[in-house]
Formats: sequence, structure tokens, C-alpha cells
Amino acid sequence: MTEVYVIGVGMTRFGKHPDRDAASLGAEAVREAIRDAGIGPRRIQAAYCGHVFQGMVTGQRVLAQIGLAGLPLANVENACSSGATAIREGYLAIRAGEYDVVLAFGTEHMTTRFSGALTPDKDDIEAAVGLTMPGVYAMRAVRYMADFGVRWDQLTAIPVKNKRNAALNPFAQFRKPVTQEAVLASRLIADPLRLLDCAPVSDGAAAAILASGRAARSLANGRGIMLAASALRTGQVETTPGSMSFEPLTRDTAGDAYERAAIGPRDVDFAEVHDCFTIAEALRVEGLGLFEPGTYPAAAERGEADIGGRLPINPSGGLLGKGHPLGATGVAQVVEVVRQLRGEAGDRQIREPKVGLAHCRGGKAAGVEGAACTVQVLVR
Amino acid sequence: MTEVYVIGVGMTRFGKHPDRDAASLGAEAVREAIRDAGIGPRRIQAAYCGHVFQGMVTGQRVLAQIGLAGLPLANVENACSSGATAIREGYLAIRAGEYDVVLAFGTEHMTTRFSGALTPDKDDIEAAVGLTMPGVYAMRAVRYMADFGVRWDQLTAIPVKNKRNAALNPFAQFRKPVTQEAVLASRLIADPLRLLDCAPVSDGAAAAILASGRAARSLANGRGIMLAASALRTGQVETTPGSMSFEPLTRDTAGDAYERAAIGPRDVDFAEVHDCFTIAEALRVEGLGLFEPGTYPAAAERGEADIGGRLPINPSGGLLGKGHPLGATGVAQVVEVVRQLRGEAGDRQIREPKVGLAHCRGGKAAGVEGAACTVQVLVR
Repeated sequence: MTEVYVIGVGMTRFGKHPDRDAASLGAEAVREAIRDAGIGPRRIQAAYCGHVFQGMVTGQRVLAQIGLAGLPLANVENACSSGATAIREGYLAIRAGEYDVVLAFGTEHMTTRFSGALTPDKDDIEAAVGLTMPGVYAMRAVRYMADFGVRWDQLTAIPVKNKRNAALNPFAQFRKPVTQEAVLASRLIADPLRLLDCAPVSDGAAAAILASGRAARSLANGRGIMLAASALRTGQVETTPGSMSFEPLTRDTAGDAYERAAIGPRDVDFAEVHDCFTIAEALRVEGLGLFEPGTYPAAAERGEADIGGRLPINPSGGLLGKGHPLGATGVAQVVEVVRQLRGEAGDRQIREPKVGLAHCRGGKAAGVEGAACTVQVLVR
Repeated sequence: MTEVYVIGVGMTRFGKHPDRDAASLGAEAVREAIRDAGIGPRRIQAAYCGHVFQGMVTGQRVLAQIGLAGLPLANVENACSSGATAIREGYLAIRAGEYDVVLAFGTEHMTTRFSGALTPDKDDIEAAVGLTMPGVYAMRAVRYMADFGVRWDQLTAIPVKNKRNAALNPFAQFRKPVTQEAVLASRLIADPLRLLDCAPVSDGAAAAILASGRAARSLANGRGIMLAASALRTGQVETTPGSMSFEPLTRDTAGDAYERAAIGPRDVDFAEVHDCFTIAEALRVEGLGLFEPGTYPAAAERGEADIGGRLPINPSGGLLGKGHPLGATGVAQVVEVVRQLRGEAGDRQIREPKVGLAHCRGGKAAGVEGAACTVQVLVR
């Protein structure tokens, strides 16, 4: 079976880029990934572009800007898992034996698409009556606190940690740490979620160059990081009482990834997870089996998930700190995991990690139809 | 190398479906493909959905309707080649050894997205000054006639043929033949293109079940049709004088497909090609190498491309006759090719074909950045 390696990564700074567009951001990230891989751009044989709101043939416009028009390219969309899905499709294309070097990138220019927060589709009846993303996650937070006896102030350890990490990340949208008091005093969005509990609207792009084992050996000079698993699942309707405070979808997708990578959650040294809201990080790390259900907020309070802790979570700053340009997010997670595994994460470097995990979950938030979940395992 | 077979196909009737949506149309097509394959739905291990304008997680909504939520699914977008790209990604996923049975479908409900014709993006500067799709193809028609000394009335043999074929296809949007006089008398859209020279706005969906050779042998009972090649390319800027009246992109993508399938254009018994406008069919069959440049209109006039002719083109009725719900089109072409190769095409059956080809080209029409082209070769 063909092994797949990440041999180059790049990303733009996330944030507001009013003078740019999705194609120009995408091209910047791809150029950086090519430079990082140290390969000639013509070594790339195929490409995948993840985005959500950028219109037709966005990836093709990026290829045109970097002089790679002509290549096979597919745009892929899986809501907030779009970038991760681009990586997965690249992984499959290499495993198919079709290509040795594949580019996977994600790009999103949200500030030109939304005047404020992400606007639901006009035919989304649930959102129209209040089940927007913040609305659903607020309900999940309330249920989680009730089910596990957790206080809200414990959960706010999560945004405090992620914004502290982001302050160490030159590519992050927010470079200032915040206090727990500041989180709790920020504007109420959907009770109990406040402004600093919510991922921002962001522009940005990220890219990764994937290669077969054979190509990685000749091109990457031992610097390749193995993409040991790239799992994807669609959400199912979850009607059991516990499904608001635990995520079977994340658990099942992680199960696929662990099986493929022949590891278990105990082997994971750190993870980038989809913390679109404060509560989301707890749901994800517990769904992944990295912490027992209901235990994460207290563990985060104790510093276990800090960069220097037992099991660092979102050392990049996560969505809350680094920003969340939808299509770029899943790729940017892989960028961070690769940099950490290479020991090139600078001030936020984790001590000698060997196994990193990246998790995304997009689409409908309440476990019903329309969710997409990805789990990728990377091994040094 | 794993071989890939199509073991089941299905589609909705194309047309105006004001009482339906993209998910419900997609579910109908998928159910029909599953029934056609004669398999239990749970045999499907992964899915790809092609669409352009249907918003986030459209494919996931289809899976939910047919009781297949949970599967890995990626939505793919390559403008008018979106459905074909879904098939290609399914083909790669099987060749990767990851799955034995993969569902590829496309769906589009255009009538709820556009009040009239397809509206260009508001940041599409070229379209704003007149380079809409009909505008570009009108220019290409004028250039083609000048370069090859072809009269416009010869080109109108194409819509007459395709609407005649569509009248024999119960899934087509238009079921009435038209005369050359009616084509020439229809409303002028972009000189010389008239209303009946343009593909309509359509709703519809189509689906195909793909299987590895191993699974096809056990499941399809010899009825599987081999997908011998599934090629994809992105357009490059074409500035040579001949690039308006000939398509290097189609030629190059076909070259990839012929090489993979180990055939040449002479081996092709019939083809479904992307006749979004009358002139487009000529550009495509000549780019594919099925007819010499500049010779197709006269050949079509002589009946060579008729169902009973030397090399039938668009026996389904093509986009002009069958309709063109963007994301569904590439899959519907494969549906037609499979039915023809099985000998199940009813009144429009071609005599004992062995090799069929499907071609799509989407995105920017003038060969510049943003085009996506697919060529698939199917063999009985």
C-alpha cells in the first residue's frame, strides 16, 4: 500500500485582508508550500482546492496565478471540513497510484461574502427560528454543563489557552492574550457563549504538498511527515439523550483514523481540533477519546492542554485564536501539525512530539444530516 | 492496477421541477442507480456529489434522504464538469484500494437559483462587459465559420439532430423534434446563436454506482461496464490564433484518457459531448479527434453523427435536447453511455457499440484560466 507524506506546507496570515481575494491568498499559500518543499512547481501533478463560499472554479484561478494551469484539479466542499477533505482527496489520489506529488490547499475570503457573521442559507428553516451555529453550540454548552456538572467559568479556560497560543503564532488573526475576565465580560452572542467564545470571520489560505513514499524519499530528504490516516464521515441523525454533550460522529471518524494508522488515542502527542466555539473544543477532544467525557474543562483549567502540558490541544491557537477562514482551516491544521512534528513551531513548539492529530467538523452542528467530520493522523 | 466498473445507473427526468429541490432529485437518481445495480444500499462505502450552485453539504443531505448518512462523502465542484469530476473521484477512491463500491452522483436545481439564464458572478468583469457564456460561444462560432468556411445553416444540423434524439429519450427535458427553420427563426440570443442553439436552464440529477473489478464480478453478474479512463485537466491561457475555433484543452484531456484506456479516437463508437451551444458540439468532437477540424458541420448535415450514422454524437439528446442541470450533466452522460453499451437505450439504441466516450468542459469558455475538462472512456 502506497504511503503518503507531507513534504511542504505554507499558509498566509489569517485575518481581514480587504485588499485580497481568495485566489490571491490561495496562490500565496501554495507558493510558500512549494518553497518549503524545495521542489520545482512542475513536480506537482494534480491539485485539490477546499473552499465553501468562493464561487465556481476557485482552485483553477489559483493554479493560473502560480503558473500551474493545465493540471487536474477538483474543488471540494464539505462545509468547515472542506480543506481537510482536499487533503483527503489528495491522499486518495496518491494511494491510487495515479500521482506521486499532489497539492492540497484551502482558501476563503469571508469578509467579502459576509458583512458580519456567517449568514445561514435563506432556505435553512432551522436557522431562521434561531438554530444558527452559535445557537446550537449554546444549547450544547448548556446541556454539557448539566450532564457533567461543569461550570461555565471552567470552560472559559479554553479560549484563554487558545488566544495565548495564538499570540505565539505569527500566522494567527489574534496576537493578544486575553484573561478569563475579558472572555466573561465580552458581548453576549447566544447565552452562555460570548464574543470571545466564537471563532471569528477570517480571510486566509493554507497549502500542503503531498507525496508518495517513493517521491518523498527522493524529494524531501527525510523531512517528510507521514499522513498515516485521513478519515471522513457524514453525520447521522443522533436522537439519543447524550448526543448534545458528546459527539458520536467525531468518535466514529476517529475510530476509522486510528484503525488505519494502527494507533489509539493514547499514542496522540497533541491535536489541532475544531474549536469553532469554546464548548466545541471540549466536545471534540472527548469525542476523539483524548479525554474522558466531561473531564476536559477541568483538565484545561489545570493546564493539561497547554503547550507545555500533558496533551497540548490547539497549539496554533485553534479557530478561536488563529482564525477560521472555512476552506483553509483543515489545511492550516495540517500545516501546524507538520511544523510541530518537524520541530519548527518556534515559540509554541511542543517537546519532541511524534504523533499529531487534526480534526474538523463542518455543516449542521447538532449531529443531524449535513455534517462532515475529518480526522487526520500525522506521524514523524 | 484495480479496474473500475459502472454497475448501476439512474437519473431523474431533466426539466423544470418547481416542487422539488436538489436533495430530493439527487435521492431519486441514487435510489434508481441502487435498484439498477441490484445491490443492497449498505454495499456502498463512500460517495461523491457534483453540484455547482446548491450550497453547503448538498451531498450529505442526499445521503440522509436515502438512509446512507455516515458514509464518507465529498462534494466536488468543477463548473459544468462537476458531475464528471464526482465520477473521477470515485474512480480514484476505488483505485486507491480504499473502497470496493462507491456512489457518484450529481444534482442541480437551477430554477430556484436563477430567475432566467445563468447569472455571472458580480465580480466577473469580463461577463459584465458582454463575455457571458453565450457571448463567448457566439464569438467562437463566428471565428469557426471564418476559419473553416462553414455556413451557419450547416451548424444548425446539430440542434436538429440533438432535439430529434431527445424526443426518443424519456428522461429528456425536450421531447419534440425541431426543424432547421424553427432553429433559425428562434429568438436571437448572441448573434449568430439563437434560443434553440443554447442549452436550457434545467433541474435534475443522475447517479452511478462504481465498483472495483472484484466487486463488479461478484455483484454485477457480468453487466458491469468498464470505466477504462477518467481524465481531468484545467484550462490554460490560449493565445494562439486558432484557439477560438479549436480546443487544445479538450485535445489534451482526451489524450490523457486515450493513453490510459489504451485506445485511440478511431476506437470510439459513439460519444456524449458537452454541447452547451450548437458550436460547442463541433469544437468538442474535433478536439476529441473524432472528426477533423472544420469538417463536423458538414458531416452532421450528412447524418454521420445520427444514431444510425457512422459515429453517433449525443444520442441522449445532449445538453441541447436532454437539458443541462450543471452538476448532473457529467453523470447523466455516463448514464447514457452505460445504457447504450448495455443495449438498453430503447428507441435511441446504437447498433452494438463497444466503446463510448463522455466529455465535459466547464468554467471559462475562451480557454483561459478557470476551465475544467473531463473525458471518460467506457468499454463493454
